[in-house]
Amino acid sequence: MGMTMTQKILAAHAGLDYVEAGQLIEAKLDVVMANDITGPMALPIFREMAAQVFDKDKVVLVPDHFTPNKDIKSAENSKSIREFAREQGLTWYFEQGKSGVEHAILPEAGVVVGGECIIGADSHTCTYGALGAFSTGVGTTDIATGMATGELWFKVPSAIKFVLTGKPGPYVSGKDIIIHIIGKIGVDGALYKSMEFTGDGILNLSMDDRFTMANMAIEAGAKNGIFPVDAKAQEYMREHSKKEYKIYEADADAEYDEVVEIDLAKVRPTVAFPHLPGNAKTIDEIEAMEPIKINQVVIGSCTNGRMEDMRKAAAILKGQTVHQDVRVMVIPATQKIYKQCIAEGLLDIFVDAGCAVNTPSCGPCMGGHMGVMAAGEKCVSTTNRNFVGRMGHVDSLIYLASPEVAAASAIAGYIANPEKVGGR
Amino acid sequence: MGMTMTQKILAAHAGLDYVEAGQLIEAKLDVVMANDITGPMALPIFREMAAQVFDKDKVVLVPDHFTPNKDIKSAENSKSIREFAREQGLTWYFEQGKSGVEHAILPEAGVVVGGECIIGADSHTCTYGALGAFSTGVGTTDIATGMATGELWFKVPSAIKFVLTGKPGPYVSGKDIIIHIIGKIGVDGALYKSMEFTGDGILNLSMDDRFTMANMAIEAGAKNGIFPVDAKAQEYMREHSKKEYKIYEADADAEYDEVVEIDLAKVRPTVAFPHLPGNAKTIDEIEAMEPIKINQVVIGSCTNGRMEDMRKAAAILKGQTVHQDVRVMVIPATQKIYKQCIAEGLLDIFVDAGCAVNTPSCGPCMGGHMGVMAAGEKCVSTTNRNFVGRMGHVDSLIYLASPEVAAASAIAGYIANPEKVGGR
Repeated sequence: MGMTMTQKILAAHAGLDYVEAGQLIEAKLDVVMANDITGPMALPIFREMAAQVFDKDKVVLVPDHFTPNKDIKSAENSKSIREFAREQGLTWYFEQGKSGVEHAILPEAGVVVGGECIIGADSHTCTYGALGAFSTGVGTTDIATGMATGELWFKVPSAIKFVLTGKPGPYVSGKDIIIHIIGKIGVDGALYKSMEFTGDGILNLSMDDRFTMANMAIEAGAKNGIFPVDAKAQEYMREHSKKEYKIYEADADAEYDEVVEIDLAKVRPTVAFPHLPGNAKTIDEIEAMEPIKINQVVIGSCTNGRMEDMRKAAAILKGQTVHQDVRVMVIPATQKIYKQCIAEGLLDIFVDAGCAVNTPSCGPCMGGHMGVMAAGEKCVSTTNRNFVGRMGHVDSLIYLASPEVAAASAIAGYIANPEKVGGR
Repeated sequence: MGMTMTQKILAAHAGLDYVEAGQLIEAKLDVVMANDITGPMALPIFREMAAQVFDKDKVVLVPDHFTPNKDIKSAENSKSIREFAREQGLTWYFEQGKSGVEHAILPEAGVVVGGECIIGADSHTCTYGALGAFSTGVGTTDIATGMATGELWFKVPSAIKFVLTGKPGPYVSGKDIIIHIIGKIGVDGALYKSMEFTGDGILNLSMDDRFTMANMAIEAGAKNGIFPVDAKAQEYMREHSKKEYKIYEADADAEYDEVVEIDLAKVRPTVAFPHLPGNAKTIDEIEAMEPIKINQVVIGSCTNGRMEDMRKAAAILKGQTVHQDVRVMVIPATQKIYKQCIAEGLLDIFVDAGCAVNTPSCGPCMGGHMGVMAAGEKCVSTTNRNFVGRMGHVDSLIYLASPEVAAASAIAGYIANPEKVGGR
């Protein structure tokens, strides 16, 4: 029996020729990442284990959740990882103003590449699967162990194979596809499994589409999501990183728990209704309902704050005005993306339309700051989770959507179909 | 005995020919303003007095302190004034994304002009004195009364006359001058008095210089600060407002408690050390000290977030890099200024230098969000108050400075002399 792509990466990092689902292994880590929430919690645990990190090039700290700091507590937390990074001489410490949201900045800065075994103390660490890496979120004890030893145990996951075919329509992007998939398999549909994306439909997905999809693998309960390292992925890595990537391919006879076929051409703009990312409704279903009036739109995050997301939102918002009852936050995910938005005139478009454009940060995604909601408010958000109270009051509602649906909704004042607003 | 400029405005608004210092009067109000902190506190008091505001064109609400909302409480507060504005049909409600910091947006949007009697539930409401208005900060009960009745009682203030002569040097702006003045007279030097700025040195002050100076009149304890309505002020108002301004001039025989002469040519770049705005040190005194290392720089606020401030900071930061130990927050005070910063390439300069550029907000000025400090941290800030703990932890320190000193310090990593960094 052959191995899946994920199993091959894990085997290689465990120094084994073969691993199988369910096997417990100890794997060497290429990148160990924590942020300003999880890092400060991990440090005391790390201190009990070691004085020095296992490799100063491989332990990465990114203050992004509550930065620029929202309060004294978050300032103390940022300070603790900043001082730790300095003390340990870490190569990769990302300070605000020169940085971005962790899962956007790590690929952009070339810290992560295909074939690596990566852990991060953040559930959306699975994002880097878009580059063909095994990458997963872990808790603070595990991250502390990884920082100290450079190794961590894993239970080798089984996998679901997603065979993607066809080409998505003009207003359908990675976000619609992944919400469609989670809607199909459920929020526990891939529990502790790999979501291995395959099929020639992938050729029609940009790297930003793939980052978005891998990012939300955890929302189906997956251990990781992973894409093949095709020419597009290799080009991305050569452009962004000095590290050598390694290509792993699933064996032809790899075993999958399930094979799910998705015709991308049939995926519609899709929104995840409160309070689960799997509560998927197509834009056609939504248009058949009474209009769902909204108070806020958030365009950004590790899920959809990348350049293509900004371009798609701007294409819809160009020359338009945000509805008077709606506040819109646009948060480019990295400083480089922010700068590119200036260069391409997108920031002008956002500002002219009446959006508040913030410095890179996780922002309101997990209710942190920069757009927290009051009771009864509704938000269309390009982020990845719509759990009860995640973006503020327990009586506020989050609708997860693509940048295009978000932008169209910002103009309409209700959840709207981007196909009907135009913009490109 | 003649009247001061302030007394003349108050007399006119009280329907009296003559008022004198100490007299209690009831004056009609042209503008009554509250924000997202004070508005929600004033509304229940207002409700006890009236069902409708006295004039829907004259009651102004600006959510700017904790917007985009930093937490559920601030979201509820913003919501309460948003709903009130809608219910009352207020002409001037400034939503985020289409707005700015209250004391920057009101002059910019033409809501306030010379000759008016203005109250705001924010201590820096004195800013509008730059336009030749009587404008002062009041508490929530007073603002509620103003909203309900359009009138408020005042004790007519006496005045200190500041005779400004000469031309400030190239790196000296309104901020240096007002800190110099507060340093000279003390933080209670103008307690419940008008600071009336006069003299031909005013011709050498831009409107942005004047806004900065009037803004900080309260930091000397003043009831208000006020400038004559010269050609420059009239041009500003014609450009920004459809309202008719009215010019009041002090009588030649007006009585002043004190006359203070300031030769602007002799004012040096001046910084207010912790923990009082009057704790003034010239840059020369600072250069004679051990370097004061800093962790953070804030460029923005109702004091120094205007276009000229952005230009001055950018001129210093152009082609430079923020010191590795320093975080820099740039917060243009209004959406229009933000947009102009894009147009002039200033945002590019800030981003290239490694600054985090935020959407218009009061930001960290009063410890709200977007740059709150941890224990032991030091910040050079273009804001207006450096009281203990104002920007975060009680053991953090704030040094008030001009945008140029702030920018030079951001590069140096310590409080630095902009004359020696160059930039223009």
